[in-house]
Amino acid sequence: MALISPSRRLRRTPFSEGVEAAGAKSYTVYNHMLLPTVFRSVEEDYRHLKSAVQVWDVSVERQVELRGPDAKRLMQMLTPRDLRGMTPGQCYYVPIVDETGGMLNDPVALKLAENRYWISIADSDLLFWVKGLANGYRLDVLIDEPDVSPLAVQGPKSDDLMARVFGEAVRDLRFFRFGWFDFQGRSLVVARSGYSKQGGFEIYVDGADIAMPLWHALFEAGADLDVHAGCPNAIERIEGGLLSYGNDMTRENTPHECGLGRFCNTQTAIGCVGRDALLRVAKDGPVQQIRPIQIEGGKVPNSDRAWPIMAGQVQIGQVTSAAWSPDFETNVAIGMVRMTHWELGTDIDVLLPGNEVRAAVVYRVFWN
Amino acid sequence: MALISPSRRLRRTPFSEGVEAAGAKSYTVYNHMLLPTVFRSVEEDYRHLKSAVQVWDVSVERQVELRGPDAKRLMQMLTPRDLRGMTPGQCYYVPIVDETGGMLNDPVALKLAENRYWISIADSDLLFWVKGLANGYRLDVLIDEPDVSPLAVQGPKSDDLMARVFGEAVRDLRFFRFGWFDFQGRSLVVARSGYSKQGGFEIYVDGADIAMPLWHALFEAGADLDVHAGCPNAIERIEGGLLSYGNDMTRENTPHECGLGRFCNTQTAIGCVGRDALLRVAKDGPVQQIRPIQIEGGKVPNSDRAWPIMAGQVQIGQVTSAAWSPDFETNVAIGMVRMTHWELGTDIDVLLPGNEVRAAVVYRVFWN
Repeated sequence: MALISPSRRLRRTPFSEGVEAAGAKSYTVYNHMLLPTVFRSVEEDYRHLKSAVQVWDVSVERQVELRGPDAKRLMQMLTPRDLRGMTPGQCYYVPIVDETGGMLNDPVALKLAENRYWISIADSDLLFWVKGLANGYRLDVLIDEPDVSPLAVQGPKSDDLMARVFGEAVRDLRFFRFGWFDFQGRSLVVARSGYSKQGGFEIYVDGADIAMPLWHALFEAGADLDVHAGCPNAIERIEGGLLSYGNDMTRENTPHECGLGRFCNTQTAIGCVGRDALLRVAKDGPVQQIRPIQIEGGKVPNSDRAWPIMAGQVQIGQVTSAAWSPDFETNVAIGMVRMTHWELGTDIDVLLPGNEVRAAVVYRVFWN
Repeated sequence: MALISPSRRLRRTPFSEGVEAAGAKSYTVYNHMLLPTVFRSVEEDYRHLKSAVQVWDVSVERQVELRGPDAKRLMQMLTPRDLRGMTPGQCYYVPIVDETGGMLNDPVALKLAENRYWISIADSDLLFWVKGLANGYRLDVLIDEPDVSPLAVQGPKSDDLMARVFGEAVRDLRFFRFGWFDFQGRSLVVARSGYSKQGGFEIYVDGADIAMPLWHALFEAGADLDVHAGCPNAIERIEGGLLSYGNDMTRENTPHECGLGRFCNTQTAIGCVGRDALLRVAKDGPVQQIRPIQIEGGKVPNSDRAWPIMAGQVQIGQVTSAAWSPDFETNVAIGMVRMTHWELGTDIDVLLPGNEVRAAVVYRVFWN
């Protein structure tokens, strides 16, 4: 692992003080902001996430706020998912595409009111695309990055911890729904969502001043629940098939290639700027698609680059995320595979660093 | 300094192999890509940059290419600088602003042909803003990030090194001009430019396959010139008053606040989307502006956040970049100061981490 030089450009978060005190061992940079990646060890964090409850500083999920008479129209321009049925209080996972259907981001959008949305973004300056469109189409909408920093509570004991801080009613939240809950006299958006498959919540902390009071309140309330600071876990998210923008997909890929075709209602998502291109993709189908891949042999190394997937001498895809899974006792991976080799059970080879060739198989489903 | 976890999302560059072999000690993340920050030590790199010649992997300066009938119109929409006099072969430093005059990037644009530009960007996804505008205004222009990775040659011996690799004619390049020069049968754009005040060039390496051959050729040709791998140097760039987008300015700031008013021809830059807002700013003048600041006392610490500038109990600005300068034997700094305190020689206080208060002064000019 390399060292990272301190810089104001790599923004701290309102929770950085807590993250540092909790002993974050390494970080990544995400939306020009620091995101912790390891506290104890990736494996220990993984075990703990699956058995207890963790508090994650995911301030890097910056919000793009749309507000005004044209907010609804603009929101539909961004995504091929049909938003007509979306009501206030709902979260939607929305692939965001450009005019060619290329993925620009894969955020979760929250509909706060008929004409107000927060888009909780993955790692790209989506704000710039949204502002450019709004300006070009002369839409009557305000677009900005508000002072909102999400804090995730994830793991099987999340409901217990959250109920102690926000009251019992928080248990009734359904998946991908949100409500307003009181903390020290402030009304905060709390959603049942998060970047793990262990269950939990995301608290949209509106105002940096209450960030550390909330952090401390969660740790105090959860002492007997073995609450610990955590972060998105590389092993757990690959097992669960949670994609990472920039890793598993880029602007080169369509949602259909990413296995996100079910979020593309191209017939009815009228107004989406990528609709024409995606109608074509929906008709022809993609020629490559994301697949779970099981890589044989011992623990694969960490990687800072994609690994080619080979069929003999021909490259037919690439592995974009991989990790050793202690629970499944195999290397779990996510890769993009050409249609000639994407069927379940197909034997493929993965070319690791140092020219090591590993046997692999296109797996049935993700590991959850 | 913190550790950074490896990830495909933090892209390697075509020169990473060379950077690693040369012993890069730390990195930053810039445009979703790794940028080395230290090779021997910041001070040793600084001395060497000022006395010899360095080769910098600045692939992070990604290009936004505009190509097509409306490229010229779109380029002018992006910036308040009047581009009518720009001819092929010229580089222009162009503040890029949104509709409110807020800075989105501060790149160098190269006019390759009447209807073709490269915009060599600072740390934000400018591509998204440009694509959004082009789509909204239905412009007839192709926009993409080409496979171009700049390699900088910086330092007083740059001309000698470059002449050995690209021929004597490269010495005739004037500042902020570029030409096409041959390397191993390939024609590359070479500009007299770069993010230091020590003189030098930027080679726009068009095609990842020739990146390492060029890297090796420069090191072989410059062995007796004490050529070394380097990178933008924090001390040297602050001495020289070279601003850093994300550090010294953000979307909150207008070009006038950044001291870039001379690049704003708001009367004549017709078509710039931020023109109306900037006409107002040009009329009223900014209420805060970037200033060189000299901070008294011993070496200031590295910082990951802005330091408040105080006049008694009132905050009247912030220091956004600072370093100890061995040559000037003082702490050199860049800060944003309110007009009440921005006059030359004004005594101010800077609030450092740990509540240490340092005396400081608004300095005359940058240190070069």
